[in-house]
Amino acid sequence: MMQKDRRILVINPNSNEVVTGGLDEALDPFKTAGVAIECMTLSNGPFGIEKQADIEAVTLPLRDLVQERGDVDCFVIACYSDPGIHVCREATDTTVLGIQECGVLAALARGEKFGVIAIQEASIRRHLRYLRQMDVMARLAAERAANLTVAQSASGNETFGRLIEVGRDLRDNDGADTIILGCAGMASHRAGLEAELGVPVIDPVQAAVASALGIVLLL
Amino acid sequence: MMQKDRRILVINPNSNEVVTGGLDEALDPFKTAGVAIECMTLSNGPFGIEKQADIEAVTLPLRDLVQERGDVDCFVIACYSDPGIHVCREATDTTVLGIQECGVLAALARGEKFGVIAIQEASIRRHLRYLRQMDVMARLAAERAANLTVAQSASGNETFGRLIEVGRDLRDNDGADTIILGCAGMASHRAGLEAELGVPVIDPVQAAVASALGIVLLL
Amino acid sequence: MMQKDRRILVINPNSNEVVTGGLDEALDPFKTAGVAIECMTLSNGPFGIEKQADIEAVTLPLRDLVQERGDVDCFVIACYSDPGIHVCREATDTTVLGIQECGVLAALARGEKFGVIAIQEASIRRHLRYLRQMDVMARLAAERAANLTVAQSASGNETFGRLIEVGRDLRDNDGADTIILGCAGMASHRAGLEAELGVPVIDPVQAAVASALGIVLLL
Amino acid sequence: MMQKDRRILVINPNSNEVVTGGLDEALDPFKTAGVAIECMTLSNGPFGIEKQADIEAVTLPLRDLVQERGDVDCFVIACYSDPGIHVCREATDTTVLGIQECGVLAALARGEKFGVIAIQEASIRRHLRYLRQMDVMARLAAERAANLTVAQSASGNETFGRLIEVGRDLRDNDGADTIILGCAGMASHRAGLEAELGVPVIDPVQAAVASALGIVLLL
Amino acid sequence: MMQKDRRILVINPNSNEVVTGGLDEALDPFKTAGVAIECMTLSNGPFGIEKQADIEAVTLPLRDLVQERGDVDCFVIACYSDPGIHVCREATDTTVLGIQECGVLAALARGEKFGVIAIQEASIRRHLRYLRQMDVMARLAAERAANLTVAQSASGNETFGRLIEVGRDLRDNDGADTIILGCAGMASHRAGLEAELGVPVIDPVQAAVASALGIVLLL
Amino acid sequence: MMQKDRRILVINPNSNEVVTGGLDEALDPFKTAGVAIECMTLSNGPFGIEKQADIEAVTLPLRDLVQERGDVDCFVIACYSDPGIHVCREATDTTVLGIQECGVLAALARGEKFGVIAIQEASIRRHLRYLRQMDVMARLAAERAANLTVAQSASGNETFGRLIEVGRDLRDNDGADTIILGCAGMASHRAGLEAELGVPVIDPVQAAVASALGIVLLL
Repeated sequence: MMQKDRRILVINPNSNEVVTGGLDEALDPFKTAGVAIECMTLSNGPFGIEKQADIEAVTLPLRDLVQERGDVDCFVIACYSDPGIHVCREATDTTVLGIQECGVLAALARGEKFGVIAIQEASIRRHLRYLRQMDVMARLAAERAANLTVAQSASGNETFGRLIEVGRDLRDNDGADTIILGCAGMASHRAGLEAELGVPVIDPVQAAVASALGIVLLL
Repeated sequence: MMQKDRRILVINPNSNEVVTGGLDEALDPFKTAGVAIECMTLSNGPFGIEKQADIEAVTLPLRDLVQERGDVDCFVIACYSDPGIHVCREATDTTVLGIQECGVLAALARGEKFGVIAIQEASIRRHLRYLRQMDVMARLAAERAANLTVAQSASGNETFGRLIEVGRDLRDNDGADTIILGCAGMASHRAGLEAELGVPVIDPVQAAVASALGIVLLL
Repeated sequence: MMQKDRRILVINPNSNEVVTGGLDEALDPFKTAGVAIECMTLSNGPFGIEKQADIEAVTLPLRDLVQERGDVDCFVIACYSDPGIHVCREATDTTVLGIQECGVLAALARGEKFGVIAIQEASIRRHLRYLRQMDVMARLAAERAANLTVAQSASGNETFGRLIEVGRDLRDNDGADTIILGCAGMASHRAGLEAELGVPVIDPVQAAVASALGIVLLL
Repeated sequence: MMQKDRRILVINPNSNEVVTGGLDEALDPFKTAGVAIECMTLSNGPFGIEKQADIEAVTLPLRDLVQERGDVDCFVIACYSDPGIHVCREATDTTVLGIQECGVLAALARGEKFGVIAIQEASIRRHLRYLRQMDVMARLAAERAANLTVAQSASGNETFGRLIEVGRDLRDNDGADTIILGCAGMASHRAGLEAELGVPVIDPVQAAVASALGIVLLL
Repeated sequence: MMQKDRRILVINPNSNEVVTGGLDEALDPFKTAGVAIECMTLSNGPFGIEKQADIEAVTLPLRDLVQERGDVDCFVIACYSDPGIHVCREATDTTVLGIQECGVLAALARGEKFGVIAIQEASIRRHLRYLRQMDVMARLAAERAANLTVAQSASGNETFGRLIEVGRDLRDNDGADTIILGCAGMASHRAGLEAELGVPVIDPVQAAVASALGIVLLL
Repeated sequence: MMQKDRRILVINPNSNEVVTGGLDEALDPFKTAGVAIECMTLSNGPFGIEKQADIEAVTLPLRDLVQERGDVDCFVIACYSDPGIHVCREATDTTVLGIQECGVLAALARGEKFGVIAIQEASIRRHLRYLRQMDVMARLAAERAANLTVAQSASGNETFGRLIEVGRDLRDNDGADTIILGCAGMASHRAGLEAELGVPVIDPVQAAVASALGIVLLL
């Protein structure tokens, strides 16, 4: 049987092409499954998404995008705050996945209590609001900030050292037995951090694309 | 780069080879990803798992199996009660996934409230205990029984008609916007039921294998 | 002592001036307190806010507005979905109140279980998500839809009859001992409905303005 | 239209007239709204309410009072343990508000997590029981004691210094973004503490009277 | 070893001696354990406890009683609303048990979901408040009223028929697998109702005295 | 009236006869009630129950035992992980009690927040899963490990010193006002620890037998 062409579209809502390139690389392992995995940059997004205003700025552009792209079988919004997820779901019958949702759910399948490493202190309050909305707070060990800039978060040894520090804190003091990287651009550190901490470390974009594959492969 | 050989082992804890064959078929769509997906029957399991005693009977045989199979990268226990999941996790460093856990988490990524179709009324109390343990009751619309035998559940038009009835009840009266098939052997009805109901219908074995792929592809 | 000039700005995020006029009238009783209560229309808002897309369309215009109006002591966003509340709070040090939040909290001060009358069935899922985020679901009796258009909701005997029907259902079948009007434009029915049902009926805009007074009078 | 005479009665359940005088002063800002705000002392109350026995001693006298005062449109029981609130509500059709309830609800309208400054360590257990009954524990950052006598709490620089200490602890270590003064007699410190801490500080009597105004102005 | 004299005091807070006599009889089975079980009437209690005002009327007399009776090793307050439990605990180092608390906890040891048969509709709201305070609502199937007078509740075939009706409703429609008699005076129906319904039926006074024995026998 | 012969069977699921002897001694105070209290060793159990595998190894032998012993009126499974409780309940109409369940419920009758002293760190995760299943996490202060071997836990001054340390930590830092000994074999320390800490200390086997008496005495 000739297989139809299927496609997952991973949208980086910020306009930083380097981040999009990193996503693309992080998703290489998933490209063997016969499903196209396309990473694109939301050209009119802000350079980084750090504040609530950045989130609001991308919701309708994301909505427009999911409406335009009729060739896609599953959308993944690759920003940890899951911007625009509800308006995108309203706008299309195609499945739209958020990486915070998928990252948390992936953690719940592998441990009792998840910890989250946020890039910035200021994001935690917003993330916790979302976790309350998901009604999963009882399974949260803690969310702690690495206090890196988004740029720093995507590269560098200093970053890795800081992730290890925060990860150990979550594991040893908060009782986390899984760790979620609370940002779209840290996948390159995942395996190393997992080796260092000895507990599953989850990159939320990879988690979301795995969920997307689980849906798209059945179409 | 030469890819290493990777393997997901899906264990049917009952000794009914027909069920195992059905699992194997249901997982065909996931076999394109370059990861071996092997379905096996727990030879010393009971013919069906319906009672708590059936669950207890398979926990240590499952544990033995996961200890013996050093060639596996992720185990999936393919019975909706997730029998032996904790003892298996204790026995191996390899990831062990349960299909109830993965099925519920897959539903949470796609809707607000999930409904579950149980085969038998008597299983519901056990399942709800597990959902309380997962701490996801706030997202449950309801679990309702189709009151089919496990054998009936794997085949037949009568079964399909009954699934539609219960699914409609969950969707219209309980407010479910996703439906989980609360048994390992109903995947053949998934797509049809989804088309009929207009909301995502989740086969928990497929959901768990998708989760397993998300882990194994990163090894 | 000469009292400084204080001002509450109630923003109707839709561009329907008739609704704004209704808000203004509904707030007359609060205008005796020596605080200016100004109702304004968000000129670039949609004519009605019914979908998630309508909400997203007003978040940044609301943000701009709260940034521009340096003469205001407390903002009230007068749409039951509390659009833009987080981005507005980020943008200003002035207090920003949402009417869903304030309506629910006003109900919690007066009874054990609150019921909500939504205008449209389709809004309920969005509202429940917000109630989960507030973590007040344990106090919700139920939310039920009147299935009126926003236009109908602001006037007419047919509307009133329907509100009574839904209110009785919430009170008698769901156990609500307070009722919230789940829309910004139904204040004209509040007193009548309260008389009819014999339990407190809360207009969320009035509730929010009362909260605003409680803050502004202390400045 | 000639406005009818409306009246909020704030009852200090202890017999300490100095406390009542303080309440009266703290409510001055709310007296501009054309509603009489009367503060009275429960003459047969204990001199201070610190123990459960003090609470029990005032429930029926409060009930008698609300039954006698037919000229009142809303009662506020001005003790943070909300003594007698249920028996008073049973005894009259007039609204009866509790200051703990209203203080907490006012905090929930303005932040994610509230902290409470109790006067005495021994009260915390009782307050937490009440917060569990309200089902708002998920929004509590923490309650911490200033360990002041009620007398100390109403005046003095030493008191203010201690409030700042405890408030900082709640804000910085417990993550509170609003602070409630967990006693009826500390309003004179509210504005100063708010200025010092940079987060909203709520006096529960003022919060309750604002809620009362929101009800009475609509009569 | 000569055993010291130990005593459980069961206090009927209403002044109806017939009820006290019924308690005494219901506790006969527990009198074999070498611990004195004394039932007494609170002479200054109301004839029945139906309203919040009745509860408030007995709190301080109960407190006085537990303070006076230095010869008691465990107090049981035999009214389903657990009146005065906190003030009594404050007043004595001797253990004070409430029958609602103990009845609910006894049910939780024997099933997944408990149902409660209240005598009067009007009591349910008060009971639910207490269950929220205990934080056990997730295990409640439902509380339903038999709508009997307290007098009726203690005797009569009509009463028994009504209990069966309500019990079946709780079991079949609400999913209760244990039933609590939500009143101090219905023990005579316990065994019959249990035989009829086929699920454990719990008399809260007997449950509390069993808890008391568990404490007193270890002194 | 000649009393029928009634019997509680307390099953020690490990094969350590010394532990069984300790249980027997700890239950002496309950043997005055005219009910036989028999302690037996599960001969084919492991020497100690420390791991999940130990738990799984005893579930079916326990089931067999409860099926064989038709002369018993209530079974108590005397291991803090409540192994096999659900399969035993399925296998017999006789009541089966678990000591973790009964210990926690006994604590809830006597305080606001319970602390648990676990023998081993590794057990805590398993216990917390069970507490989540019971839905009582909101009442847990904390569970902390004494990090003793099971053998050490049954005897010795060193053990007692360690229990005091952990108990103080739970009381002073976690706010526990009751303490549960999280193991079947520590009853000999109960009274001493209670005297030392000044809060109720609960041995879960004694708590379960008290619950059993409450059921059996009514047969």
